[in-house]
Parts: sequence; C-alpha cells; structure tokens
Amino acid sequence: MKKRVGILGATGAVGQEFLVSLENHPWFEVTQLAASERSAGKKYLDAIRDPASGIIKWQVGGDVPEYAQGMTVVSTDKVNTSELDLVFSAVESDAAREIETKFAKDVPVISTSSAYRYEEDVPILIPGINDDHVELVEVQKKNRNWKGFVLPLPNCTTTGLAITIKPLYDNFGAKRVIMTSMQAISGAGRSPGVSALDVTDNIIPFIPKEENKVRIETAKILGKLKDGKIEPANIKVSCTCTRVPVIDGHTESVFVETSKPTRLDDVKHKIEEYSDHVSTQGLPSAPKDYLVVHQDPTRPQPRIDRQINDGMTTSIGRLEEDTIFDNGVKYVLFSHNKKMGSAKGAVLLAEMLYKKGKI
Amino acid sequence: MKKRVGILGATGAVGQEFLVSLENHPWFEVTQLAASERSAGKKYLDAIRDPASGIIKWQVGGDVPEYAQGMTVVSTDKVNTSELDLVFSAVESDAAREIETKFAKDVPVISTSSAYRYEEDVPILIPGINDDHVELVEVQKKNRNWKGFVLPLPNCTTTGLAITIKPLYDNFGAKRVIMTSMQAISGAGRSPGVSALDVTDNIIPFIPKEENKVRIETAKILGKLKDGKIEPANIKVSCTCTRVPVIDGHTESVFVETSKPTRLDDVKHKIEEYSDHVSTQGLPSAPKDYLVVHQDPTRPQPRIDRQINDGMTTSIGRLEEDTIFDNGVKYVLFSHNKKMGSAKGAVLLAEMLYKKGKI
Amino acid sequence: MKKRVGILGATGAVGQEFLVSLENHPWFEVTQLAASERSAGKKYLDAIRDPASGIIKWQVGGDVPEYAQGMTVVSTDKVNTSELDLVFSAVESDAAREIETKFAKDVPVISTSSAYRYEEDVPILIPGINDDHVELVEVQKKNRNWKGFVLPLPNCTTTGLAITIKPLYDNFGAKRVIMTSMQAISGAGRSPGVSALDVTDNIIPFIPKEENKVRIETAKILGKLKDGKIEPANIKVSCTCTRVPVIDGHTESVFVETSKPTRLDDVKHKIEEYSDHVSTQGLPSAPKDYLVVHQDPTRPQPRIDRQINDGMTTSIGRLEEDTIFDNGVKYVLFSHNKKMGSAKGAVLLAEMLYKKGKI
Amino acid sequence: MKKRVGILGATGAVGQEFLVSLENHPWFEVTQLAASERSAGKKYLDAIRDPASGIIKWQVGGDVPEYAQGMTVVSTDKVNTSELDLVFSAVESDAAREIETKFAKDVPVISTSSAYRYEEDVPILIPGINDDHVELVEVQKKNRNWKGFVLPLPNCTTTGLAITIKPLYDNFGAKRVIMTSMQAISGAGRSPGVSALDVTDNIIPFIPKEENKVRIETAKILGKLKDGKIEPANIKVSCTCTRVPVIDGHTESVFVETSKPTRLDDVKHKIEEYSDHVSTQGLPSAPKDYLVVHQDPTRPQPRIDRQINDGMTTSIGRLEEDTIFDNGVKYVLFSHNKKMGSAKGAVLLAEMLYKKGKI
Repeated sequence: MKKRVGILGATGAVGQEFLVSLENHPWFEVTQLAASERSAGKKYLDAIRDPASGIIKWQVGGDVPEYAQGMTVVSTDKVNTSELDLVFSAVESDAAREIETKFAKDVPVISTSSAYRYEEDVPILIPGINDDHVELVEVQKKNRNWKGFVLPLPNCTTTGLAITIKPLYDNFGAKRVIMTSMQAISGAGRSPGVSALDVTDNIIPFIPKEENKVRIETAKILGKLKDGKIEPANIKVSCTCTRVPVIDGHTESVFVETSKPTRLDDVKHKIEEYSDHVSTQGLPSAPKDYLVVHQDPTRPQPRIDRQINDGMTTSIGRLEEDTIFDNGVKYVLFSHNKKMGSAKGAVLLAEMLYKKGKI
Repeated sequence: MKKRVGILGATGAVGQEFLVSLENHPWFEVTQLAASERSAGKKYLDAIRDPASGIIKWQVGGDVPEYAQGMTVVSTDKVNTSELDLVFSAVESDAAREIETKFAKDVPVISTSSAYRYEEDVPILIPGINDDHVELVEVQKKNRNWKGFVLPLPNCTTTGLAITIKPLYDNFGAKRVIMTSMQAISGAGRSPGVSALDVTDNIIPFIPKEENKVRIETAKILGKLKDGKIEPANIKVSCTCTRVPVIDGHTESVFVETSKPTRLDDVKHKIEEYSDHVSTQGLPSAPKDYLVVHQDPTRPQPRIDRQINDGMTTSIGRLEEDTIFDNGVKYVLFSHNKKMGSAKGAVLLAEMLYKKGKI
Repeated sequence: MKKRVGILGATGAVGQEFLVSLENHPWFEVTQLAASERSAGKKYLDAIRDPASGIIKWQVGGDVPEYAQGMTVVSTDKVNTSELDLVFSAVESDAAREIETKFAKDVPVISTSSAYRYEEDVPILIPGINDDHVELVEVQKKNRNWKGFVLPLPNCTTTGLAITIKPLYDNFGAKRVIMTSMQAISGAGRSPGVSALDVTDNIIPFIPKEENKVRIETAKILGKLKDGKIEPANIKVSCTCTRVPVIDGHTESVFVETSKPTRLDDVKHKIEEYSDHVSTQGLPSAPKDYLVVHQDPTRPQPRIDRQINDGMTTSIGRLEEDTIFDNGVKYVLFSHNKKMGSAKGAVLLAEMLYKKGKI
Repeated sequence: MKKRVGILGATGAVGQEFLVSLENHPWFEVTQLAASERSAGKKYLDAIRDPASGIIKWQVGGDVPEYAQGMTVVSTDKVNTSELDLVFSAVESDAAREIETKFAKDVPVISTSSAYRYEEDVPILIPGINDDHVELVEVQKKNRNWKGFVLPLPNCTTTGLAITIKPLYDNFGAKRVIMTSMQAISGAGRSPGVSALDVTDNIIPFIPKEENKVRIETAKILGKLKDGKIEPANIKVSCTCTRVPVIDGHTESVFVETSKPTRLDDVKHKIEEYSDHVSTQGLPSAPKDYLVVHQDPTRPQPRIDRQINDGMTTSIGRLEEDTIFDNGVKYVLFSHNKKMGSAKGAVLLAEMLYKKGKI
C-alpha cells in the first residue's frame, strides 16, 4: 500500500514540479490535488489551461504526467485530510502560514515556503545533512498538540551552501563563510517573475530578504539538536545574492575560513568520502552522486551541471586552498534550485521520513 | 601644438577604442596608426575591411571617426618614433613585450598589455589612485637607459577593485579583500573571444590567470613608492573570476575586512569625499563623478551603469557593514572594462602625465 | 513662444520616452504632466519612485531630464486643457479611448495607443510617408464637433514596414507583401512585460492581435485621401510576428511582389532618392538619414542599428531581387520600436503638424 | 550480428552526437573511431582532452558514452574499411569531398557534409519523406564503379522545411514557398562558432550560402526519381536565413501558395495523417510523432519543443489559411538542428537503409 499524498498549490510552477517528481513513485501515490477556489472542480488539465487562449500553462519540461491529467482539483479548504498520509505544500508564502497550520493539525506537511522555517520547534531539514534534526518534530507535535507536523525546506540558495559546507564544518571546523551567489531567474518564480527587460545582458545585484535567510538557515541546519532544541552552528556567514541571465540553477562562489589546516587533496577526499557515505543512498530520488568535485576548472557550469542526475547532485569546482586565511578554502558550487533545492528535494525528504517511520 | 600620438595595434578592438577616445582631443593628435604587415599601406577603412565580404569590421558603437578613415596604416616596425611624442599600445600580450621595449627606447609608451606590469621599475598607474608612482619612470629610464618609458594599465578587473579599495585602505585600513567577479564577454576580446555556445544561459567560473593578476596588481597599485621602488600594500586579496552573459562591464562582489571601525555613513562619506577631491578633476577624459555610491539597492547594473559618464565612473552599490569581521564592509562595484578599464583609461593616464610634464 | 504640451501617462515607459524626446525642444515646452490618481500631487521624481524600496523607476537610458524632476504630476482628469496647445498621450489602450475622446474636444491629441486607429475619419500618420492624410483631421473635427483632434501613431511593427514599402509602392507597384517580424521584448512593455523565463534562449512565435494590426494599418497608411476618406492601398499583406531575445528594435524579413520589374540598383536608387527628398528634412527630431540601405550583408543588426541617429533611421539590408515572383524584391529591415516607432516618432509628427500650422 | 560502424570526425561536435545516437543501438555497433592525425593512437577520452588544461571537450549533454571512452582513435587514412559495414562521416566540408570519395569506394557512407549533395547521381534523403530516392544509389555505384556509396543529409535548415512541405505538396500542390529562418547558434558549429559578442541581444540577418542550399535541396528532395535521375519538384522557394540568440533548434516562419484550396482542418488532417503513416515507424531512432501540429498559438518554442522525442519530432504551429494567395497557408515550424537535422537523423537514415537491405 502506497502512502496517499496531497499536493497543495498543485497548479503553480512548484506544484507542477511535485507532480513530475512523484510520477511512478514506488512509495507515494498522489491522491488529491488542491489549488485555489478558481481551479476547484476542474480536471487538472483544464485547471492549468489559460481560459482566454486555451493554452495549457505547463511550466516544466516534457508533458503533464498522465496520472494527473484527469484528476479533479479540489479547493484547498475542501481537502479531506483523513484520506491523506502526507501533504506537499507549494503554496506561496503569504497564505502559507495559515494553510500549513491547518493541515499540520491532522497530517505531516512538507513545505517549500519559508512560513515555519524560523520557529524554534521546526527543523530545516536537508536529507543527508542533518537527518537527526527530524526528532524535533516530536517536540513540535507535543508543543502544538498536532497530529501532523510542518517540515519546511531551506531557501534554494541555502541548500547548496549548507550541503557543501557540511563536510568542511565536520572535518575542518569551518567558521567563517563568505559567499556570492549568481542565481537563476527561475528562482524568482513566474507571476510575474523576472522581466526579460531587467535581466537580459544584465545582473541585478539584489534579491530582497535572500541574504538574511541564507545566513540564519545555514547556521540552523549545521547546528546541534540538544534538549529538544537546535543550537545553531558557530559559523558566521556573509553573502551577497545576485540575479543573472541563467534559466535554471544557482552558482555560488564560496570562501571558507576553517580552524584546521586544509590540504587540498585532504579536503577533496573528505568531501568525496562524505558523498560516498551519505545517508540518502538507496532512496528513490537520491542521486548517484550526492556531491561531485570537478577537476576541470571550467566546471561547474549551469547549462551542463543542471542536467547531471536530474538536478539532484551538488557540484563543486575550482576547489583551492585560500591563502588569505590562516586556514581555508575557496570553491564554486552549483545547485539546482528547482530540483534538489525545491520539489524533488522535498520528495527526497519525504522518502527519508518514510524510512524513519515518521510518515 | 598638440602632442603627436601613435597607436600600435590600431585595427583591433582596443585600438579602435583608442581611435574613438582620442577623437577631437584637446591635447593629443593621432598622427600615426600602426598594425601588422598585412594592414600596412592601406587606408584605415580598408585595413579593417574583411577582404572576403567587404564588411567594415568596426567593433565600437557609432562610426569610424572621420579623421582616421583615410589615414594610411603603417607596419609596426616602420613607425617613425622621431615624429611622435607618445605611443598607445594595444598590441596583444605575446608580441607586446618585444614591441614595447623597442618603442620605449625612444618615446613614452602607454600599454593595455600585461607585458611589463610586474617589473620592479614599472608602476601600474590608475590616474586618481596612485599618481605619485609616476616618479618611478625616472628610475626606469635610468635603469634601462631609455629615452622613453613603459606604463602599463592594470588588468581591467583590477581597475574597479583598486579604485574602490583605495578610500577604504586610506581611511579604514583595509587588510583583507575577498572578491567574486562577474565579467563581461567583451573582456575576452574578439579573436575568437567567448563562443555564444559557451556563455548563453550559462556562467563560466574560470578565467585563466586572471585571479593572480588581480591579487598582485591590487597590492602594487595601493603600495608606497619608497627609495625608487614600490613596496606593495599590506593587503591580502583572494578572488574568484567568472564570465557571465553580459556584453560590457565587470561587476564585482567585494567583502573587505578593515582594521578600523566602519560606520556605514562614515564609509560612504569617505568614498564620496575621495571622489570629490580626486586628482583627475579637470582632465579632458575624467568623468564628472569618479566614484558613485548608489542608494538604490538594485544598482549597480551593467546595462544601466555602463552608460554613465561614458563608462569612466566606477559605481558602488549594496554598501553595508559586514558582521563576520570585527570591522568590515561589503559592496558590489561596477567598472567598464572597455572604457575606464582600457583605452579611455589609458588616455586619462596620458592626460595626467601631460599635466605633470612627463610627456 | 513655445507650444505648451501636456503628457498623459507621463510616469510609464512610453511617457518617460516622451519626457526625453521633448527635452530642450526648440518648439515645444512640457507644461503639464498627468498620470493616474495615485501619482497626483507628487513631484515627478517621487511619482516614479517605488514606495517600498525608494527606487526611482526610470526606464530610459540616462537620467530623468532636469526640467521634469520637480514638476508636480496632476491627475489625468484635472488637466487644464485651456493652458495646453497639444497633448501627447501614452495612456495604455483600455483607458485610452475615453481619455483621448475627452481631451480631443479641446485640444490636439497625438497618441501611441490603438484606440482611434481604425476609425474612418482618423488617419494613421507617419511623417515623411503620408503627410497629406493630415487633412482628414478637418473632417474629423467637423464630424465630431471637436476643437481638437486625435492622431494615433501606427503599431510599432507597422512603422518600419510602411516606411520601407512606400518607395516600392510608389515606384514599382508593390502588391503583395509577406513579412516575418522578430520583435524586441521592450515592445511588450513592462507591467509585467515579457518574462525572462519565457524569452531567454527562446522565440515566442505569437503576439496577440499584432498581425492583423500590421495588415490593416499598412494598407491605410499607403492609401489615398479622397473625398474626405482614405481609400486603402491595393496591397495585400501577410505576416507572422514573433518575439525574440533582443532588448530594443524590431527586425523584419520582407518579401515583396511588385507589378513592375525590380532591377536591384534601380530599387536601391529609388529608396535612397526617397530618403534624400523626404518631407521631414529640417524637422528637429528628423534623422540625418530617413532610410539607409546597407551593402554589408550582415546588417541591419539590432545592437548596432538601434544606435544610429538616435533610433530615428529605418535600416534596410539584404536587398535582393526575388526570383519566385515575376517581379519582386526581398530585404531585411530594422526599425526602433521605442524611438521612430513610438514617442520620438510622435514628436516628429507633432513637428510636422506645427510646420503645417495644425497646432 | 550487428553491423560494424565507423565514425569519421569522431572527436568534433557532430561526431560526438553520433557517439550518443549510436549508444546501445540494436542494429549498429561502433567499432572504429577516426579523426585527424593529431588524435590518432589516443584513447577517445584523451583525444578530446584539451592538452593544456586537461579539460574533456565533450560538447553534448550528459557524459561520454562508456563504450567509447576507452576506444583508440585511428587516423582517418588508417581506417580499415574491410572491417566496416557502414561509415558515418562528420568531417567538415573542405576535406569531406576527398575523404568521402575514398571511403565510398569500399563501403556505404552517410554524411552530414554538403560535399556530394548536388551531384546528379546522389539523392538527398530524409527518411519518411523521399525513401524511394534511395534507389539512385544503384546508379551511383554503377556510374562510379564503387562498392559503397555516399548519402548526404540535407542542410539542417532544409530538413524541417522539406518535412513540413511534403504533405502540402502531395495533397495541395504547394508551388511557392517563402520562408524566414531564425537559426540556433549551435548550427554554426564550434570552431570558433558564433561569437557571444555578435549574437547576444542581437540578430545576424545573414548566413553565408545557406539560402541557396535550402532552395536547391528542397526541390530535389521533393522531386521524382525517374529514369535514373531526380527531376526536381516544381516548387519555387525563397528564403532569408538569420541567426538568433537561441542555443539549439531552428525556427522557420513559412508561407506557402498552393494550387488547391486549403481548408484549415483539412490541411491539419492531412499533415497528421502523413505523420501517422510515415514510413519510419518502428525504426529505433524514429520519434513517436513524426510531425506535430500545435493548437497552442505560442508553440512551437525552441526551449520547449527541442526536448520533445529527443529532438526527432518536427513541430508545426500557428497554422492558418493565408489570404494573400488564392490558395495557401502559413505556419511556423521547429526542427532540431542537432538531432533530426544532423547525427541522429543520419542514424535514422541508416536504419531505413538497413531495413531496405542497402547496408
């Protein structure tokens, strides 16, 4: 018997990625699709059809998965939680807080919104990085007297940073991190998203609120769960986030000061070792390579690396010892904002929870 | 009487920028255009005409300046230095060393190549930043027994960094600099330059040799001329240089650790004060604003800022105190690689030399 | 005494182009700026400032013209027409009909909207092409009992086509026109305009309603004013309009069947002759070259040709006899959608009216 | 026993596409890889490695197929044709003539070059369109006294045009075709290919020789094989070919005059019927849909349609009756220049030949 899954915000761009990520899933079956009142009662294919032009507004590559095409969309407030084992929420942030609260009373909710990320009893989980934080959901359930719980993903810019810092933090005592991101336009969504007039032949050196999110989330993810709360890692993060004319995938230029010496091949070895033994191995959505360290100095490149392992691998290139710190390294990372950093990463998280018996 | 100026490499992209930068110049008159044997004897317009298609290969906006159209191009080894007061060299780096050496025996040479940048008796001058280093040319002339001298510009990625660090170094004791560049494709030249297949919807996280140049040149430019040599500034620079799909103008994300406290409005004030009193004021090619600090957090943007003051202004935005250092700031800068960072910057340098009586 | 000019929709992208096009104008002086209720009572600079971020939303290159910065914006329905000699309307099409009607009762209105384009007593004027149609405004005034009139510009895709067809129509009897446009993203405006996700590394082969506009407008513009109405030219136009990743300027690939033989140098000669004797000569906004025929087969190119004569020249390239018709030619044209095809073209029209004593 | 296949020019971009197209092929096995003297004797992975940087120059998505990585590359003139049943040639056009001639003496050659396209005894085959022309190879073999033969693919711009015209020609008597192409940058190859400085935010309205190729090839492909030669179709083609900032896939705007009436749903029906009964059905590389007619007016779009059926489907959109001809239609097509228009199309052709017993 597969777990019964509902998708909230199923008609939007992230919702559509959920539909694709869950197609033919061995453990999960999508049984309810929810969206706003406007879409309620329609077949999914009609719900994403532009009424004026008749155009199907499908925003992911390939076709709408067949299983979803004929499903009837329900209004978010008509979802029957008693027939669900799990909810994926792709609801945009303003409405997210209220909706996720309502659902979590009955059923586990995995969310791409930031609504609950900064609550004390809510971990920000990246499968393979801080799986042990999952125990905080027991505190959360008790605190709030919920049958379910809320588990938010990190911001998509945090994901790649936290994943690459983790082996450096564990093995070399990463203590200061300086990062400049070059983020893809798909990260800004689609309604209306980034205007072509703003980003063609251009860079926009500012993404509202992004830098603060990265700072707080990185320390929380790398922190320790102790006595029912997460003690943030003792790591200082400074970053500047920019938007560049790249469609999918965030590139980040990272400089890390560590407390221990960083011999280059030692660092490379520890990263690859981490990847080889990562906890996500064997999960259906896990990539063959969790982390890859490129020797080729021209990698990672968004257009090449976004295709590797369907966007679930985090790539590192230009790895070098950094001479301006007593100890430290510099590197460039690539992380796919719409895959590992979004819906498919959320599915990977659900798989980890399933394995741990949390859903 | 205007100074008589020769341009070496006059048919290439940088040479063409020189032609434009010197049009109607109040102090300089272009009297000789030199290029390779292949162009020798042709009218300039014919020399840049593609023989197969008849197309004029003019790579700068607007038209070929009228004064140049009918001038006859001479072979570089036929230039008559006795009829020149100054040479601008846009020769590519491999040949540059030999050619610049030959000319410097007779006449001052200002060059965009890196051939002489790292010699002990050769300063890397940015007008307005380290004008006093110009005295090193006297040492150079004596050492080498030359009538002229060689003055190379810095690498175009160094230019914006050194200009913006200068007021921070003077006033706040900048000691560690971490920079990530997002460089324009025009910086790679045109023969063949960056392939559209490589950079469209993409980032290339590596520019050969660039990072080392930035590191060494920044310390040299900010250094002190003492006892006939330059003592590099005690400033550590680490950087990662990337190529992005932007046509003109380099953007750099900079983090600076300083030895003194950096109150934000104090920093802003010192930068603007530096700009207001910069030594280049009144020179014909100097911009109205040497440095600009944007309040708008979405600036600088290449497509907007490259137009300001014909690319001669260095723009700063996103200026903030940085919390991961005891003292420090972070910001994003924009510098036009084809104007202040290249030919027109070289003309500004010549103007400064003229004012100082060096040519 | 300069003519007093009001701009409706002064805060939008087209309105901003009007402000620039009218800076230091020898005959016109902007005395009133009108926009929606939301902007009313504010200084212009504040009216275009984003309230949340404080960012000045100026969408044209360079700075906000000084004369406009401190002017107070009035609500469109508070404009005092008794103090105006002319109104430029940049109001978007839905509201345009009502607003233009109201103003035309009192004062001449030149508009970039399509609201009145297809009315029988309204000519679509392109200065230099069909100046004689201007007499239709007398019919219009009488019909409608207005003191003023409405003169709409053509759609920006029609402009370049009609201008280039005109000498072919007059001299060679152009009778069938087949055109494929490759239109710039700025043509779609900015609220929200074209999403970067839609147009990066892509072509959108459809622009709603555009093709029909081009068809009808071209025949009307090239038509004859007779007995108080315009008889459309006997010319059949078929076209496909596409959006491409180009910022400014429309490129059109055109095939024309003519009734008379088209010897190539004869065609070229007639086009250049037309340009040399065009009626707009001497008007302040008229370009040095009205039409240019490039020999270089790689022209016109948007990034080069948009800069020529501040976007007021229409460029033709790839001019060849076409062998599939008994008589005909093919060519590629470039026309700047934001200059000759919009606000600055409207100012040129006003200049022509002024010369003719219509305002 | 699989047919033994050699690839000439195996290290270039097209050669790499061949390697991918032939991975795990049910009928063909790559047994020899040939390239220039410089690569001879090296393992394939080393042959495509840049000697200076050590970078693997793999230009196709994904990884180098495992079967090829360790194969030793031989010099083109050392290929042992006695151990080959078929050769795919990806040699660039200048050398192609001589090399293809030499190989065709012994073995069938399928080529992406234009060297033999315009010979009287050489058909230009598109599988599914003119399979019967294949019999011309018997004439060719006899004429030239060869054991093998040469079969060139059409130019990649011709491919989509000929495929879409075919059902119109058969059913409605297409007689005049007017086409404007918007071609991808990958069509220009990679050494050096199109410079990013030339095509970013730009259109280049000229591709040398391309238009003539399309004209001649389309008539030849749609022609009739009679008495040992091909009588070109009585169809007049005029076209303008442009380069646009799109990475992969050619878009073409087409207008067709026919001799019979073209009711829209009839046309659509005939195209779909053609696709449903196309001869390539069942071939390993044939797409599920040979031709697709989109209802959505915003299709085809390169970024979406290039992914459909791995680039082997030709897409049609914007299909409309055209009113300027007595009878006719207009539409926009999309064809993948690196898949159906190149190596994978060549493999499909080989499959057709295999089925017919020609190899």
